[in-house]
Amino acid sequence: MNTLDIITKKRDGGSLSEAEIRYLTEGCVSGEIPDYQMAAFLMAVYFRGLNREEIFALTKAMRDSGDVADLSQVAGFKVDKHSTGGVGDKTTLIVAPIASACGVPVAKMSGRGLGFTGGTVDKLESVPGFRTALTRDEFVNQVNRTGIAVIGQSETIALADKKLYALRDVTATVENMGLIASSIMSKKLASGSDGILLDVKWGRGAFMKTVEDARELAELMVDIGRSAGRKTMAMITDMNQPLGRAVGNSLEVREAIDVLRGEGPADIYELSLRLASEMISMSLNISPEEAEARARAAVDEGRALGKFREFVDAQGGDGGIIENPLLMGEARFSESIRAGDNGYIEEIDALKIGMASQHTGAGREKKEDVIDKCAGILLTRKRGDEVKTGDELCRVFAGTQEKLEQASAICREAFEIGENKPSGRELIEEIIGR
Amino acid sequence: MNTLDIITKKRDGGSLSEAEIRYLTEGCVSGEIPDYQMAAFLMAVYFRGLNREEIFALTKAMRDSGDVADLSQVAGFKVDKHSTGGVGDKTTLIVAPIASACGVPVAKMSGRGLGFTGGTVDKLESVPGFRTALTRDEFVNQVNRTGIAVIGQSETIALADKKLYALRDVTATVENMGLIASSIMSKKLASGSDGILLDVKWGRGAFMKTVEDARELAELMVDIGRSAGRKTMAMITDMNQPLGRAVGNSLEVREAIDVLRGEGPADIYELSLRLASEMISMSLNISPEEAEARARAAVDEGRALGKFREFVDAQGGDGGIIENPLLMGEARFSESIRAGDNGYIEEIDALKIGMASQHTGAGREKKEDVIDKCAGILLTRKRGDEVKTGDELCRVFAGTQEKLEQASAICREAFEIGENKPSGRELIEEIIGR
Repeated sequence: MNTLDIITKKRDGGSLSEAEIRYLTEGCVSGEIPDYQMAAFLMAVYFRGLNREEIFALTKAMRDSGDVADLSQVAGFKVDKHSTGGVGDKTTLIVAPIASACGVPVAKMSGRGLGFTGGTVDKLESVPGFRTALTRDEFVNQVNRTGIAVIGQSETIALADKKLYALRDVTATVENMGLIASSIMSKKLASGSDGILLDVKWGRGAFMKTVEDARELAELMVDIGRSAGRKTMAMITDMNQPLGRAVGNSLEVREAIDVLRGEGPADIYELSLRLASEMISMSLNISPEEAEARARAAVDEGRALGKFREFVDAQGGDGGIIENPLLMGEARFSESIRAGDNGYIEEIDALKIGMASQHTGAGREKKEDVIDKCAGILLTRKRGDEVKTGDELCRVFAGTQEKLEQASAICREAFEIGENKPSGRELIEEIIGR
Repeated sequence: MNTLDIITKKRDGGSLSEAEIRYLTEGCVSGEIPDYQMAAFLMAVYFRGLNREEIFALTKAMRDSGDVADLSQVAGFKVDKHSTGGVGDKTTLIVAPIASACGVPVAKMSGRGLGFTGGTVDKLESVPGFRTALTRDEFVNQVNRTGIAVIGQSETIALADKKLYALRDVTATVENMGLIASSIMSKKLASGSDGILLDVKWGRGAFMKTVEDARELAELMVDIGRSAGRKTMAMITDMNQPLGRAVGNSLEVREAIDVLRGEGPADIYELSLRLASEMISMSLNISPEEAEARARAAVDEGRALGKFREFVDAQGGDGGIIENPLLMGEARFSESIRAGDNGYIEEIDALKIGMASQHTGAGREKKEDVIDKCAGILLTRKRGDEVKTGDELCRVFAGTQEKLEQASAICREAFEIGENKPSGRELIEEIIGR
C-alpha cells in the first residue's frame, strides 16, 4: 500500500477501504507516514468527506491505536454519558450519582477543559484531596464497591486520534463531520462501556452552531456506536446560553450539589434528570418513564446526594464541601456586571461567557496552563428574565484584578437585552436512537 | 499574520494578499512554517485554485526565495528558451547555436532529467570533458566572448519552489495549473534573461495531456512573465510521439549535430528552426519571417554547427565528437524491436518510449541515480510510416542485458500499428503571446 496513492484516491473523490484507512492510521501513529502527508490527506477529506463505511473504519482503527479499557470485571450494563462540550455543563457531576443511586454502575473516564469549555476532571479536582488518577484496579474495585468512579482519561487512549486531532487543529481541518464524529467515538469505544449516551450540544457555546449540524453529528455518532455493537443514543440540547448559573470549576461543583439537593437552577436540573433517566433506562432495560421516576426519587429522597458524598469520600476528597463549599476556596476579586437598560434578557451568549470564564483563569488556552479552581462566573439572571437598569446580570470571580477586568469586559458583551420577553426555546431539542 | 488563518482563508475560497503569500513562502523556506501546514495549504489550493494575482505573487515570492542571476554584464537582449519537458527533446542543443550564430546572446541555465524526461545538462555531459559547472564570471565571460554558454541550474535558485515542489510530489498536489505555472516561472524569472520563450508540450509524453490544458498553462505563464516585466511567448507543440528519432543522452547529442548539419529528422529540425526564429525575432526585434530566414541560413551555411563546436570547445568538451560521435562511447548491448504486423504506424507513445529509455539506464528514477550516457532508443520509424512484418521499429541500447530486456518489453508496447495511414497532426499547434 502506498500513502501517495491513498491521498490521491481521496483527493479524487474515491472511497477508501478499511485496509487503506488502517494503514494510514497505523502509519500516522508509528511515524512511518510523515505529518505532511497526513495533513494533505486531512485537507482532502475536508473537501471530499468520508462515507459511512470509511467513518466506521476510521473510528475503529483509531480506537485500536491505543489502550482499550476492559471493564468486564465491573458487573452490570455500563453506560458512558458524553457531552460534546459546553459552558456551565456540570451534568456528569449530577447524572453520575443519580444513576449510581438507581443501581447503574458508573465507571467513567472524563477529560480536562480546553478553550472555552470546561472538563469534569478539572471540576472534581477543585474538591480538596480528590484523586482523579486511580490505577485500573482501584478504579474497577471502587465501582464494584460503591457503584461509582470517575477518573481522568488515559493519556494512551486512541493515540491516532490524539495525533490526528493535534494536526487538524493546526491545518484548518477540524470542521468535518466524519472526522469530528470518529474522533469522539474512537475514545468512547475505547472506554469499555456497554452503552453510550451522547449529549450533542448546539448553539453559540457549542461546537455545532445549528440544530441541523448537531443532528447530523448525533445521527452519525449513533450509527458509529451501533456499527461497533454498542447501544447508542443521542440527545440534542441547547447550548446558546450557559447551562445553570455557575461557570468555573468550584462554582460548578457547588451548583451540582445544589441540584442534587433539589435546589439548583431549573435547566440544569431538568437536563441532568433526563440524561440520568436515559442512562438508567438503557442500563436496567426499563422504560424511560419508569427510569425518570426512579431518578427523581433518588434526588428527592437524598440518595443521589448521599451517593455523591460516598463518591467524593472514596476518591479521597473532602466531603465537608457539601455542607461548606467555601472549603474549596474563594476568589480574591469579584465584580458585578449590571444591566445598562430596562427590558428582558434575550440572550446570554454562551461562547462569550465561556471565553470570559477562560479569561478569569478558570480555563486553559494551552494544555499546559494551570487553572484557577475558584475563578469563574455566576449568572444572576438567565434568558427571559426581566431586568431594570442597574440590576446585577452576573458576578465575575478572578484571582487578579487584571484577569477580573479582562473577563468582565467580555461578560458585558454577552448579555443582549431587548424590549420584549423572548419566546421559549426547547432545552432538549430531540432524542435520536432511543 | 497567522498561518492557520491563511490556510483557513484559502480553504474557504478566499483570495490571499501578496503579503500573505510572501509570509507563507518565506516561512516555508526558513522552516518557521512546518511542512504539515504547507501540505494542508497546498491541498486547499488544489481544491480552491489560485487567481491570477495570487499566482503572480507566489511566482515572485518564490523567485526571490533564492539566488537571482544578474546577467546585466552580458550585452544584448537575452532570451531563455524553456521546454516543459518531453521525450527526445534535444532542441536546446540545436536552438542555442543557431540563435547564437545569428547574434543572439545565449546565456542559459538548464536542468537535469528526472523520470521519463531528459535534461539538457545530462546530454551535454555525454560530450567527453564538457563542464556544465562554471563560475558566474566564467559563464558571463564566455557568453561575452563566444556568444553562448549553457550551465547547470544553480542549486540555490527559487528555494521555496524547490521545497514546495518536493512537498507537492508526496502530497498529491502536483496537478494544479497555478502551482505548475508559478513553479516553472519562478525559476525562469530568477534566471536573469530579458525574454522568455516557452515550449509547452501537450500529449502522451507531456505533463499536459490535452491541447486545452497546454493552452491554459501557456497563457498563464505568458501572463506571469509579462506581469514581471518580461517579454514572454509560448509555443504549444506536439509530444505524443518522441521528437526526432533519438532518445538518450549521447544519442541525442549525435542527432542534434545531424540537425545542425541539415541532415536530421524533419520534425526536430522544423521545431528547432521555429524556436530559434522566435528567439532571434524577440532578441533582435526583427520579424519572425526575417528571423527564420537568418536561422535557416545559419544552418545551411554551417555557421550554426561552427558555433556548436566553439561552444563545446569553450566549455572544455571534445569537439572531435562532431566528426566522430563514437568518442562519446557506445552501449554494450542492443536489440531491434520489429513490427509484428503489416500496416501504418498510428502512434509511438512518447510516455512509453520515455519510460523505456529510463529503464535502459538513460534516465533517473531518483535524483541521486547515475545515468548511462550511451543508453537509449533510436526510432527507425515514425508515426505515419508504412511497415511490414519484421521491419525494425526501433533499436534499444543498454549497458546490461537485463536493462535491455526490461526496456525492450516496454518499447514493444509503444508502437500502435493500424491498417490505414493516420491523418497528419500539427507539430506546432499554436503560438501564444507573439
